[in-house]
Amino acid sequence: MKIDGTAYRTIWLAPDGRQVQVIDQTKLPFVFETLTLDTLEDAAQAIETMVVRGAPLIGATAAYGMGLAMAADPSDAALEAAYTRLMATRPTAVNLRWALDDLRALLTPLAPEARRAAAYARAGEICDDDVEICASIGRHGLALIREIAAKKAPGEPVNVLTHCNAGWLATVDWGTATAPVYMAHDEGIHVHVWVDETRPRNQGAALTAYELGHHGVPHTVIPDNTGGHLMQHGQVDLVITGTDRTTATGDVCNKIGTYLKALAAKDNGVPFYVALPSPTIDFTLSDGVAEIPIEQRASREVSHMTGVSESGEVVTVDIVAAGSAVANYAFDVTPARLVTGLITEAGICPASREGIAALFPDRI
Amino acid sequence: MKIDGTAYRTIWLAPDGRQVQVIDQTKLPFVFETLTLDTLEDAAQAIETMVVRGAPLIGATAAYGMGLAMAADPSDAALEAAYTRLMATRPTAVNLRWALDDLRALLTPLAPEARRAAAYARAGEICDDDVEICASIGRHGLALIREIAAKKAPGEPVNVLTHCNAGWLATVDWGTATAPVYMAHDEGIHVHVWVDETRPRNQGAALTAYELGHHGVPHTVIPDNTGGHLMQHGQVDLVITGTDRTTATGDVCNKIGTYLKALAAKDNGVPFYVALPSPTIDFTLSDGVAEIPIEQRASREVSHMTGVSESGEVVTVDIVAAGSAVANYAFDVTPARLVTGLITEAGICPASREGIAALFPDRI
Repeated sequence: MKIDGTAYRTIWLAPDGRQVQVIDQTKLPFVFETLTLDTLEDAAQAIETMVVRGAPLIGATAAYGMGLAMAADPSDAALEAAYTRLMATRPTAVNLRWALDDLRALLTPLAPEARRAAAYARAGEICDDDVEICASIGRHGLALIREIAAKKAPGEPVNVLTHCNAGWLATVDWGTATAPVYMAHDEGIHVHVWVDETRPRNQGAALTAYELGHHGVPHTVIPDNTGGHLMQHGQVDLVITGTDRTTATGDVCNKIGTYLKALAAKDNGVPFYVALPSPTIDFTLSDGVAEIPIEQRASREVSHMTGVSESGEVVTVDIVAAGSAVANYAFDVTPARLVTGLITEAGICPASREGIAALFPDRI
Repeated sequence: MKIDGTAYRTIWLAPDGRQVQVIDQTKLPFVFETLTLDTLEDAAQAIETMVVRGAPLIGATAAYGMGLAMAADPSDAALEAAYTRLMATRPTAVNLRWALDDLRALLTPLAPEARRAAAYARAGEICDDDVEICASIGRHGLALIREIAAKKAPGEPVNVLTHCNAGWLATVDWGTATAPVYMAHDEGIHVHVWVDETRPRNQGAALTAYELGHHGVPHTVIPDNTGGHLMQHGQVDLVITGTDRTTATGDVCNKIGTYLKALAAKDNGVPFYVALPSPTIDFTLSDGVAEIPIEQRASREVSHMTGVSESGEVVTVDIVAAGSAVANYAFDVTPARLVTGLITEAGICPASREGIAALFPDRI
């Protein structure tokens, strides 16, 4: 999508054809800066420190990380070491495993001297595929927004609520949850997005607000506590979130707090959709709450907050009472019964084993 | 309760018998500082700027504000002006109206020269009554905690989740939601509190964590997004929140986000109690969602965050993408159907017209 009129992807090959460039998302929304990944370790750390984040972008970065590793040393041992290093970066992201398994399966049978080129070619394909998948999600979700818009009085916006950042910054382009919004906006539908702040890392206030704003989409940032009130008062027409991991039965593991918004949507008859590329579906899982391990991250992400001071400096401050313990669960699971439908690249389906199976008969 | 071993109330008369002293809650948890209120305007501003906050403490401060006004000018005109000025400070707080109506009714028939002493005496009574009311709430709620504790294995804590600060800092002493917790802790029950951060003003991370910590109660601060996940995994035994305003039918208007926790409690079979002094019940209301106007506060409360920098300075930073709109709804309404019971000074009752009427037959 565009940043101040210039089209970007979140990850691209540097002019030398070996290095990889990414937007440093830890600096957003305060500073727009790109970062060059020169080694496998750079790629692994970019994932770990959330310079890149979002399931699809993590997968793409891991794929290029395999390329960087093969450019340095295409041996069997280096291939295995790169796979292991990258797999350890984020335990929850199923796209990470998918991309790494794909690359390893492709590269292992090849002669070492053929691995570098093959890895880069495949990483490029994974990026292009992701863009096409997100565009497809956008086209399917757009139909939902058009339908709501058709019932609105002139001038009345379609109000979409989203949680965290399942925007283009979380993918290679378009985003998942935001793809329908960008397409609706681009074709002239008056769409307005309620952007959940998304504590503790503030990906909504920082990233979703940033990308919507720079593309020109009307939006309002709200504390995570607010969505239920808005739904009670008819101010939300549609919720669309992303997902890090989806079970074969339609349970959705997404950023902590998603479950609370799904409960509120159910309680108020607001449609709750989850946008996802099908690689996000983990067909080995059938009970999200019981089976998906929830990553616990550093307490500092909760206790400390980064922003811009009056004098324009980027400053990190401690906001919690001194000496208090802090817990930081990164995700929660929204049971399928609360999800109106899944918006995938292959179409929209009910969040159920039958719904998913009908859309992806080859993947069961 | 105690701060580092010293017993405090949140509001008390200065040694001169005219000035009023309060803890400056806007400075917590970073700095403990008391503030002296010298005039009616000081009292009004203390309420407006949330130097004092919490329904019962707002009522007590308003009462002393009438005293300060009468000390300066006990005329009929000054009495009316003080009433009007104080009433305008916070539109949602029913205790404010209650205390001001009470003081006006008491003072109006008196000779001007008798008003000052009467106002101070009544303000002192309102404070003492509040302490007794909170202690009663504590004793009734304690029974719930004892019951859960009795079923726990040795060493297993009773996990209570609370939202915002309905602690002793929100009242004159004890708190409402926290009173049962302090009593359980003081009698040796192993109680642990999940403290919702409570964006946007962070009253949980700043105030509830501060007061629990300084009294020695084990607790953990969590982002507001987290409670649903904890309830799904059996890590919450009981939710207790406060309320700013309660309808005659048991709908609860409390800090924004309370509704989301109530939905999660219902979905997971976790008891959801609301602790309240009965003056918080507004017997003129029967449909909270439809009838209670929700205060919208400054967007800066959402976009800006105050904390302590690495160098120990208290700094305020802007955390939202530049140019993004921000909305700040201060409260939401939790329908009575989601509330297990109301813990009042007169006992625990179902959150229903019948339940409330049975406990307060004289107030209907």
